[in-house]
Amino acid sequence: MYDLLKTIDDPVALRKLDRRDLTPLAEELRAFLLESVAQTGGHLSSNLGTVELTIALHYVFDTPNDRIVWDVGHQTYPHKILTGRRERMHTLRQAGGISGFPRRDESQFDTFGTAHSSTSISAALGMAHASKIKGESRFSIAVIGDGAMTAGMAFEALNNGGVADDLPLLVVLNDNDMSISPPVGALNRYLARLMSGRFYAAAKKGVERVLSVAPPVLELARRIEEHAKGMVVPATMFEEFGFNYIGPIDGHDLESLIPTLQNIKELKGPQFLHVVTKKGQGYKLAEADPVLYHGASKFNPVEGIKPSKPGRKTYTQVFGEWLCDAAELDPRVVGITPAMREGSGMVEFEQRYPERYFDVGIAEQHAVTFAGGLATEGLKPVVAIYSTFLQRGYDQLIHDVALQNLPVLFAIDRAGLVGADGATHAGVYDIAYLRCVPNMTVMAPADENECRQMLHTGLSIEGPTAVRYPRGAGTGVETVKHLAALPVGKGVVVRESAKPAGHRIAILAFGTMVAPSIEAGHALDATVANMRFVKPIDHALIRELAATHDVLVTVEEGCVMGGAGSACVESLLESGLNRPVLQLGLPDTFIDHGDPAKLLSACGLDANGIAASIRQRFFASETGDKSSVAKLVA
Amino acid sequence: MYDLLKTIDDPVALRKLDRRDLTPLAEELRAFLLESVAQTGGHLSSNLGTVELTIALHYVFDTPNDRIVWDVGHQTYPHKILTGRRERMHTLRQAGGISGFPRRDESQFDTFGTAHSSTSISAALGMAHASKIKGESRFSIAVIGDGAMTAGMAFEALNNGGVADDLPLLVVLNDNDMSISPPVGALNRYLARLMSGRFYAAAKKGVERVLSVAPPVLELARRIEEHAKGMVVPATMFEEFGFNYIGPIDGHDLESLIPTLQNIKELKGPQFLHVVTKKGQGYKLAEADPVLYHGASKFNPVEGIKPSKPGRKTYTQVFGEWLCDAAELDPRVVGITPAMREGSGMVEFEQRYPERYFDVGIAEQHAVTFAGGLATEGLKPVVAIYSTFLQRGYDQLIHDVALQNLPVLFAIDRAGLVGADGATHAGVYDIAYLRCVPNMTVMAPADENECRQMLHTGLSIEGPTAVRYPRGAGTGVETVKHLAALPVGKGVVVRESAKPAGHRIAILAFGTMVAPSIEAGHALDATVANMRFVKPIDHALIRELAATHDVLVTVEEGCVMGGAGSACVESLLESGLNRPVLQLGLPDTFIDHGDPAKLLSACGLDANGIAASIRQRFFASETGDKSSVAKLVA
Repeated sequence: MYDLLKTIDDPVALRKLDRRDLTPLAEELRAFLLESVAQTGGHLSSNLGTVELTIALHYVFDTPNDRIVWDVGHQTYPHKILTGRRERMHTLRQAGGISGFPRRDESQFDTFGTAHSSTSISAALGMAHASKIKGESRFSIAVIGDGAMTAGMAFEALNNGGVADDLPLLVVLNDNDMSISPPVGALNRYLARLMSGRFYAAAKKGVERVLSVAPPVLELARRIEEHAKGMVVPATMFEEFGFNYIGPIDGHDLESLIPTLQNIKELKGPQFLHVVTKKGQGYKLAEADPVLYHGASKFNPVEGIKPSKPGRKTYTQVFGEWLCDAAELDPRVVGITPAMREGSGMVEFEQRYPERYFDVGIAEQHAVTFAGGLATEGLKPVVAIYSTFLQRGYDQLIHDVALQNLPVLFAIDRAGLVGADGATHAGVYDIAYLRCVPNMTVMAPADENECRQMLHTGLSIEGPTAVRYPRGAGTGVETVKHLAALPVGKGVVVRESAKPAGHRIAILAFGTMVAPSIEAGHALDATVANMRFVKPIDHALIRELAATHDVLVTVEEGCVMGGAGSACVESLLESGLNRPVLQLGLPDTFIDHGDPAKLLSACGLDANGIAASIRQRFFASETGDKSSVAKLVA
Repeated sequence: MYDLLKTIDDPVALRKLDRRDLTPLAEELRAFLLESVAQTGGHLSSNLGTVELTIALHYVFDTPNDRIVWDVGHQTYPHKILTGRRERMHTLRQAGGISGFPRRDESQFDTFGTAHSSTSISAALGMAHASKIKGESRFSIAVIGDGAMTAGMAFEALNNGGVADDLPLLVVLNDNDMSISPPVGALNRYLARLMSGRFYAAAKKGVERVLSVAPPVLELARRIEEHAKGMVVPATMFEEFGFNYIGPIDGHDLESLIPTLQNIKELKGPQFLHVVTKKGQGYKLAEADPVLYHGASKFNPVEGIKPSKPGRKTYTQVFGEWLCDAAELDPRVVGITPAMREGSGMVEFEQRYPERYFDVGIAEQHAVTFAGGLATEGLKPVVAIYSTFLQRGYDQLIHDVALQNLPVLFAIDRAGLVGADGATHAGVYDIAYLRCVPNMTVMAPADENECRQMLHTGLSIEGPTAVRYPRGAGTGVETVKHLAALPVGKGVVVRESAKPAGHRIAILAFGTMVAPSIEAGHALDATVANMRFVKPIDHALIRELAATHDVLVTVEEGCVMGGAGSACVESLLESGLNRPVLQLGLPDTFIDHGDPAKLLSACGLDANGIAASIRQRFFASETGDKSSVAKLVA
């Protein structure tokens, strides 16, 4: 079992293997991967698809001197296993364990941290230019999926890289006809056409030439020269961008991959290798349903993933249901997702309202401005987007939507900490970066039903609005079918302190922090307000609480800096009021992957932590325990 | 004089003209434009280039029912003149006057507000889908330049629009071989190749067919059908994206433009018309130097633009000089601009260090991640970018740079209000959206020399840093050649109050607000601190000032919400201190174009305004005048 694999502690050992050993190694690696992910959970389909490609790249190139940048990075488990982390795979995505993505601080083979899509060509191009400036010789390689290729920044990088005539830059397009959601758009159609018909035939012939004509390097060099001189009509889009296009080749066939890469290694200038792989390759269950096996919890590899028992409704489901209800009530409602149909809960909406459903691909910038265009015509666009990905559409939100005061509703999922995906996917900054934008209304629901009401409220406002809700399930309250708008800019007091003047604490809580704040409020006999609106903030309520309490505490699942607590303080100061305020929220550090509840607890954002922080600040005798946060931040 | 033009108060009148009158109309329009821009200042080259295209579009299409979205929008003066704003052109870009960009609140013919590049296809596609959903029939047209085509979001929109097989969508590529800086990248090479050699010949033949074969519509329809069936080998990148490509045609020849557009009008599905124009067309001085005439101040059309007398050094010049000095001292320093060589002051740097200069095109996302890639290899990348455009690279700044703590220096120009370009270009949010990001160091210089010191300081820090400086000239201080780093996170007291306890005011000022704060400090005998660092904020100084003063005032040229003032308050509260704080800065509204000094004054951000706000808040008897701000905000 794993006889070959356990000898590979780094790529140097891999490169010592005989080529005939690589196919059995791939079998072992695939088996190990399946066993490992079944035990830890994690991404499966994409990793099963990159087994041979990973072996071939490390076998042919001189890593880590040659740089490999893995786009998105959730397909790097084979890479991790082959670069010294085999024994740590059982800690994957767990607190203190290795990350589900490449990380520079984890290994010198992880040349660039990735997770958000479509950054790899830009990063690899930067490395290639830097090496040239430093007078060092190496290949810089970006491995990018066909889904990631639809994002604008990949094209920006192609446009830039295609004129880098003298740089050893290689872009490997890992074409598995899959983003997380099914592929959309013209590029996908185009790649499909490259795979069939005359393009494919010509391309195949090209590969055969590469593989058969001696010496193949000279043959490739000749083609490139012809291409550079404009003698050859560009055959593909990628050649139009200035790259030498090679492919498509079978990404599971080491006998194609290795000689092709060896030839490419001898070339200068931007190279583009089109590799075709299959998500889930080698594990029949995953091949049959790569979406189900995209991100898996622990499972039994023999039985496969079993349908999980329906637990509490997630916020994502609440959103999905609301969107269908809203669409039924109002024909102007349309839904937009940047390639996150499943993750954003839009499967049913697409089925029921296909003509009002828009998956625009991995294209957050376009998604937001496209929504702006829809809104100018009187429609009610709902952009379903993760907090962390809305960072990609920030300029468009300001310049195309808010500045024109267009009624676009941003349904912001994954706000706050997200758990196993870690810092790259955490939704920590949205409150700070949204509330400074004029015309915005920003809401944070305390529970599932309030989320539903807030979405409805957002849709009723004639301007840009945002509802930010967390990953996973909420408090478990029932959602009420009837939709009624909340009073805009109004919070509610959910617990009243019975303490006498001189001892009165008011906790101003936002979104997910309302529930633990109520618990902390019970422990301390504090007043607790569910503020509901980050913007407009409830000035009257803040004034009232300040007038009737001695100290105020703000609590949010977002960065303290510039966050909702600061909105409360700004309001307070504007009123000329002056009270001690304790601002609780996420610390000024990137928080690694781990169990979300434990991470929140470590940040002091559970009931005990909130109460302890209040005691520590305001009751010097009773010191709260902040050591766990201190450890986390250190 | 303007006999024809003065009869055109809207496109209906234009469409009543005989086609033979259009060429003389174009002459009049061009003359009027030159006369008008010479009087007001504004964009000239781009507008001279779009005279015929504008006439043709409004002549052929049924505007405003058909929608035209002008990308970037600074080429819309002919459009404004023909759509009822001829008589208001003398107010262009002045307070209360018409905008230099399209604005929905200015005219129903301005279907979408633009200014930042590359949004038009997304917006037009949204409009096209909305019209289909509403069952309305109209063309949606995006007019986009070849420079704007390099930005990723244009490709995202093409990828999405190319599969909209049944939508009447037209993209007009206005190819004038120019962004504001000279064109770069593979796309530009490609467009040049489309213009010459076999592509051009084939394309020309295509146009001839369109124009000569009867009935041309059927001929075009046949080609599209063939294209849809995959029978025709895609000839251009745009066809690979699913568009029907027509062109290139001469964008100054109304006899080509009008029949071509008339034919296109009869077609369904995404159309792509490649039009070739010349920036500055018809005005020899602008034709010869389109960069000089890109954005002009007032000038005499007969004499042309005269070299302006060297005035005080601008921050942009200070940056440019520093970059050359830094590059001389340290071979690791490299400079990156997203297509703003002139605007960012990098002309000399490019000349002296061509191999370390990277103009990546209009590609802010790529620019930031590319810098991250360079930094991983030990280089010291400096990204020169306008505050408003960094919004486009926000996710990349967080995810690719800050999260990996890579030493990239962001030299942020045009921070604060920018004047004639108005709300779309104002740099109001950078402090709020940057300071919430872990690992960032954020600085704001009080004068030119401090700017130079801060840039040097930024470069010396082993992590991401930003220096935000304003448009235009500073206080006029000399810059010191010797480069010395400032103590990180330390502000300085620049004026000490002599008042007794009970009357002591401390003003905590940032960047451009230091100078007026000192003046206000003199008037009120207040202590004034130049805080220098937004992040890390100077906790010790804030504690000290709070301990020795009765009230604090924060002043910044940026949004109050989440801004530098909030950083001071968060610090204060964290220390458990409790003081009345007045937070001054830009109000929560988009601020229109106008004279920057007057706009700042209207926001209360000059010495008088600062003093008045302090009096009003803290000395009830002396009421300050805030009416001008109130007016602005209303």
